[in-house]
Amino acid sequence: MPEPNPSSSFFNRLVAEALGTLLLVAGGIGTAILAANFPSAAHNSLGVGHLGVALAFGLTVVVGAYAFGPISGGHFNPAITLGVAAAGRFPWNEVVGYIVAQLVGGIVGSSIIAAIASSKSGFFAAARDGGFASNGYGDHSPGHFGLGGAIIVEIVFTAIFVFVVLGTTAKIGAVGFAPLAIGLALTLIHLITIPVDNTSVNPARSLAAAVYGGGWAWAQLWVFIVFPIVGGLLAGFTYRPLFGKTFTAVA
Amino acid sequence: MPEPNPSSSFFNRLVAEALGTLLLVAGGIGTAILAANFPSAAHNSLGVGHLGVALAFGLTVVVGAYAFGPISGGHFNPAITLGVAAAGRFPWNEVVGYIVAQLVGGIVGSSIIAAIASSKSGFFAAARDGGFASNGYGDHSPGHFGLGGAIIVEIVFTAIFVFVVLGTTAKIGAVGFAPLAIGLALTLIHLITIPVDNTSVNPARSLAAAVYGGGWAWAQLWVFIVFPIVGGLLAGFTYRPLFGKTFTAVA
Amino acid sequence: MPEPNPSSSFFNRLVAEALGTLLLVAGGIGTAILAANFPSAAHNSLGVGHLGVALAFGLTVVVGAYAFGPISGGHFNPAITLGVAAAGRFPWNEVVGYIVAQLVGGIVGSSIIAAIASSKSGFFAAARDGGFASNGYGDHSPGHFGLGGAIIVEIVFTAIFVFVVLGTTAKIGAVGFAPLAIGLALTLIHLITIPVDNTSVNPARSLAAAVYGGGWAWAQLWVFIVFPIVGGLLAGFTYRPLFGKTFTAVA
Amino acid sequence: MPEPNPSSSFFNRLVAEALGTLLLVAGGIGTAILAANFPSAAHNSLGVGHLGVALAFGLTVVVGAYAFGPISGGHFNPAITLGVAAAGRFPWNEVVGYIVAQLVGGIVGSSIIAAIASSKSGFFAAARDGGFASNGYGDHSPGHFGLGGAIIVEIVFTAIFVFVVLGTTAKIGAVGFAPLAIGLALTLIHLITIPVDNTSVNPARSLAAAVYGGGWAWAQLWVFIVFPIVGGLLAGFTYRPLFGKTFTAVA
Repeated sequence: MPEPNPSSSFFNRLVAEALGTLLLVAGGIGTAILAANFPSAAHNSLGVGHLGVALAFGLTVVVGAYAFGPISGGHFNPAITLGVAAAGRFPWNEVVGYIVAQLVGGIVGSSIIAAIASSKSGFFAAARDGGFASNGYGDHSPGHFGLGGAIIVEIVFTAIFVFVVLGTTAKIGAVGFAPLAIGLALTLIHLITIPVDNTSVNPARSLAAAVYGGGWAWAQLWVFIVFPIVGGLLAGFTYRPLFGKTFTAVA
Repeated sequence: MPEPNPSSSFFNRLVAEALGTLLLVAGGIGTAILAANFPSAAHNSLGVGHLGVALAFGLTVVVGAYAFGPISGGHFNPAITLGVAAAGRFPWNEVVGYIVAQLVGGIVGSSIIAAIASSKSGFFAAARDGGFASNGYGDHSPGHFGLGGAIIVEIVFTAIFVFVVLGTTAKIGAVGFAPLAIGLALTLIHLITIPVDNTSVNPARSLAAAVYGGGWAWAQLWVFIVFPIVGGLLAGFTYRPLFGKTFTAVA
Repeated sequence: MPEPNPSSSFFNRLVAEALGTLLLVAGGIGTAILAANFPSAAHNSLGVGHLGVALAFGLTVVVGAYAFGPISGGHFNPAITLGVAAAGRFPWNEVVGYIVAQLVGGIVGSSIIAAIASSKSGFFAAARDGGFASNGYGDHSPGHFGLGGAIIVEIVFTAIFVFVVLGTTAKIGAVGFAPLAIGLALTLIHLITIPVDNTSVNPARSLAAAVYGGGWAWAQLWVFIVFPIVGGLLAGFTYRPLFGKTFTAVA
Repeated sequence: MPEPNPSSSFFNRLVAEALGTLLLVAGGIGTAILAANFPSAAHNSLGVGHLGVALAFGLTVVVGAYAFGPISGGHFNPAITLGVAAAGRFPWNEVVGYIVAQLVGGIVGSSIIAAIASSKSGFFAAARDGGFASNGYGDHSPGHFGLGGAIIVEIVFTAIFVFVVLGTTAKIGAVGFAPLAIGLALTLIHLITIPVDNTSVNPARSLAAAVYGGGWAWAQLWVFIVFPIVGGLLAGFTYRPLFGKTFTAVA
């Protein structure tokens, strides 16, 4: 998440955010839906499991941030955009544009997975009925954890995620390693928390899945919009008092 | 995928492309054939599964691009060579030479795996009858996805792959990280899509497997030549209008 | 583990150490408790297993050292703080402050996992009764290895870990790669030794788990405080005679 | 594998080679013996499998080469020492010293694993009877591949490994990334070939395991000394004609 490239236009930057979020959603929920269980949940001898899903989510950010980050800064996540704005490192007047691009890109990403799923008879319907990799709590948590667990996960780990973004992109950070560290942070967060609420820390990812998951996924979506944003803003506003003047403001 | 090294001859560069593609094919389909199921598909307690195959394909590019990329640019894939040529970053008059080197290197790579497989009685025949890790759709898709799914996968993910190549090797990219990001992109693409069509995004990989897979693999090969090239060219021609003038042309 | 940033205050540096250790513990034992077995040890088709736990521990250090390392040096472990002090690279008069911050951060980390676990009926009690991912030997070793095995593991691998820290952060090291190498060293150590004693090499991690594990975990805790420190000091005091004057003293 | 550090003595460099090879063997065969099957081969719900072993071998080199490579060049493998000498990048008169240090370090590494294994009743004897993770062919190949398969694997993949070493440490290589690329190459080679002959490409690793494996492991050891050396020398002598004058000679 380097500073946006001044030679690309705002349109170019929105394209980069949309494509990066498309990749994040297609990669993360695509792996969850198409590849986690193979050949089936009952006989999973080749499937990539939660480890593969965690790697996939993280690699989307590693790859997307190296490829598109030099253009847009590589947020791909409304909670990050809000968090870096709160920390004084991103202009507030561009926040809405970025978030719209992320939401659109995410929905295109889940639509690509829906289209692929539709090429196998009955597969799309089964994936949809299973929630299409949506986030959930209670009966819809993968491991049946309650709402309290989901709230803690989303606030704490989104805050840590935004601290990592702010720390690795500060002037004192190791040049070039930020996309790797930020992507691996997302892998780490998924490794810990997929069983709790299928891991959001990103409202664009949650919305993109719920569009196809429907029903309970829509009903529980607010949790995965509100609490990642709470965590992101919390980190953004407390970064300077906690860690000192270690950063560069772009605003 | 840095710019080719001016002190190596065109012959040296073709050797680098051939060896890199040899490694890609031997590593990727070698892992699929020799190591994914161990000791067997029915009792897979130690096998590396699709996660291992996805890592293997990606690591071939990480390793090959760091080792041979400084010499040839590290394409190892006709869809990338065509895509970077379409983007104005590779001379069109060298495209045919690169592609021939890739096809030859890939077939040598699958031949090495065939030779190793032949050292165990009955193993080569079984691998051949199973398609020798060829790409396929319908009854020959690992998860029985249809032709439509394969077409979407090959166009969309080859296009993303070429966007990643172009983005990470642009002048604004983080120096030195391109091979890592590009290789991890290939791992990511395999994590998502192995169940759909065994993942091509690379006609040289598909041809190298089909040479031993025969039968249906030959019959379906056109899909994995045409659509990766479509995706690669699409990305190459749209990179500049979508992302702005962020790149360096070598042509 | 670059040199601490002179523009951050000692308070800022202690916050960085506490947060990094919080992440290490929440990430490592969180993955062990919440995600290693899924849905259960008897039918573990999606769980991340010891491989996932090993990756999680390592990624906490990769991520934490890139994000918080530029502020505090990124120790997150009393055995490292003592080892780098013994090697003449960290001031002895700051050791106590760092260790207190690490112990506090670690306990907050395990408390977050305890809170998440409590959101599923019966889950926290089961995790507590299973030792809450504490380190142990004999009947409490995951693979029933004895005290001798645990002692060898903690001395040898903590010493290697501190050699890696000292080697990668020496002036002759590759700039920027230290956090990656140090984190992957922790992954490697876990890959080898989880079955032996659940892997400590870090007294803060062991204390944080024992606080919730109670009983045998408390009784065996001394092993995972004493021997990691022995290994860390051993490495710190022998680094210069073994490897030569390759380092930079900050003290 | 940067150039050896002129401020460390030859003794310091031999210590670095010995410790690096100790880590390679303890990490690789330690993971194979202690962690691949957990709790047992028949019920392997948490074990790290061949994927974990492949990662462990690779990470030992990533970690060791970043930590000790700036001192000794980070070979940890007689086939690499011979290969880089053949390519004109390492002085022939230091080859014997390096190889002795590697062999000694490797045996200390397997002895550490033997000591840990001895802390669990019956475990060392079972590991020894199983060959102590030695390399083998025919009945002693993990997947029952024949001698021909082992010979192809050792020549081809050691040659590729040495090409990767020579390519990534050439002046034209990306600065700092060589240890990462070389270590990941070793992971890749293990991913492909563990089922064939348990993967050597390193005579020091094979000797260190055979010391405890005894019997058939001793009888077959020559294969894993001769053919890795053949592959390494082949790569060393052909690097310049194949790839051009891309390197720096230190001799």
